[in-house]
Amino acid sequence: MPKLDLAKVPVKTGSGYPGSLAAKVGARRQQRVGEAGGLTQFGANIVTLPAGALSSLRHWHEKQDEVLIVLSGQLTLVDDFGETPLNAGDVCTFPAGEANGHQIVNHSGADGSFFVVGTHTDSETAWYSDIDMKVTAGKGGFGFTRKDGSPLPEDI
Amino acid sequence: MPKLDLAKVPVKTGSGYPGSLAAKVGARRQQRVGEAGGLTQFGANIVTLPAGALSSLRHWHEKQDEVLIVLSGQLTLVDDFGETPLNAGDVCTFPAGEANGHQIVNHSGADGSFFVVGTHTDSETAWYSDIDMKVTAGKGGFGFTRKDGSPLPEDI
Repeated sequence: MPKLDLAKVPVKTGSGYPGSLAAKVGARRQQRVGEAGGLTQFGANIVTLPAGALSSLRHWHEKQDEVLIVLSGQLTLVDDFGETPLNAGDVCTFPAGEANGHQIVNHSGADGSFFVVGTHTDSETAWYSDIDMKVTAGKGGFGFTRKDGSPLPEDI
Repeated sequence: MPKLDLAKVPVKTGSGYPGSLAAKVGARRQQRVGEAGGLTQFGANIVTLPAGALSSLRHWHEKQDEVLIVLSGQLTLVDDFGETPLNAGDVCTFPAGEANGHQIVNHSGADGSFFVVGTHTDSETAWYSDIDMKVTAGKGGFGFTRKDGSPLPEDI
């Protein structure tokens, strides 16, 4: 396949987070370039965070390796080590099973973007570091629960 | 893991290509950032091509998805469609089993760089489009042969 025509790759906003949590990442824009280019073994996305936006809630994956490289702007990695400034060319790796939840936030006043790749697996559980929630994914879809598997509060 | 200290990730040159073929990619510089950051499920490398350099001989993978995004400079994708100019932000995908050999070349007068990710598998065969060669990799290492499995000529 020659290079992708990025103008034809849909720009997605929104998330599958339940209740009021979805709005927390509502400003994030993503292009699923790996999927658009016919890849199935890992996801590869270009993510743009406007000023103040979050990439995700802080989380870690049981089975899936993840890597990102910053493309533009000034972003911040938030993990158990605290806040780490990121600039273009910086690389972060998140090995499967390493229970150090991470998220990328944009504290700057301008857009920032990164390219992120994460393995696809038939099933997965990801754990959220700052709230009582996990997500379990399988062939039938995915679902959010409390960490003990019980339903989330209705007013989440 | 917080962001990688790229100054501490070794810059590798050279290749495992046999005979005179190794020199063809001798100018390529790579940092194996995925490996440095503890990832095992895919390789993630920052590749820098000085003026005139090649990323690889033109090849395709049977089992391994591959994606790249250009970070800097002016590069060129060479595949069965011909030559396609690439600039910063351009993305190319190479789905496993798609028999369209690819390589990145730098026809410009300055460095160019890209970030590339390819799945790790227990075994793999890659086929070279422009010469009678394949490489077969397994847990014991890897080896180059002609496409029919017979030895390469001694003067390759």
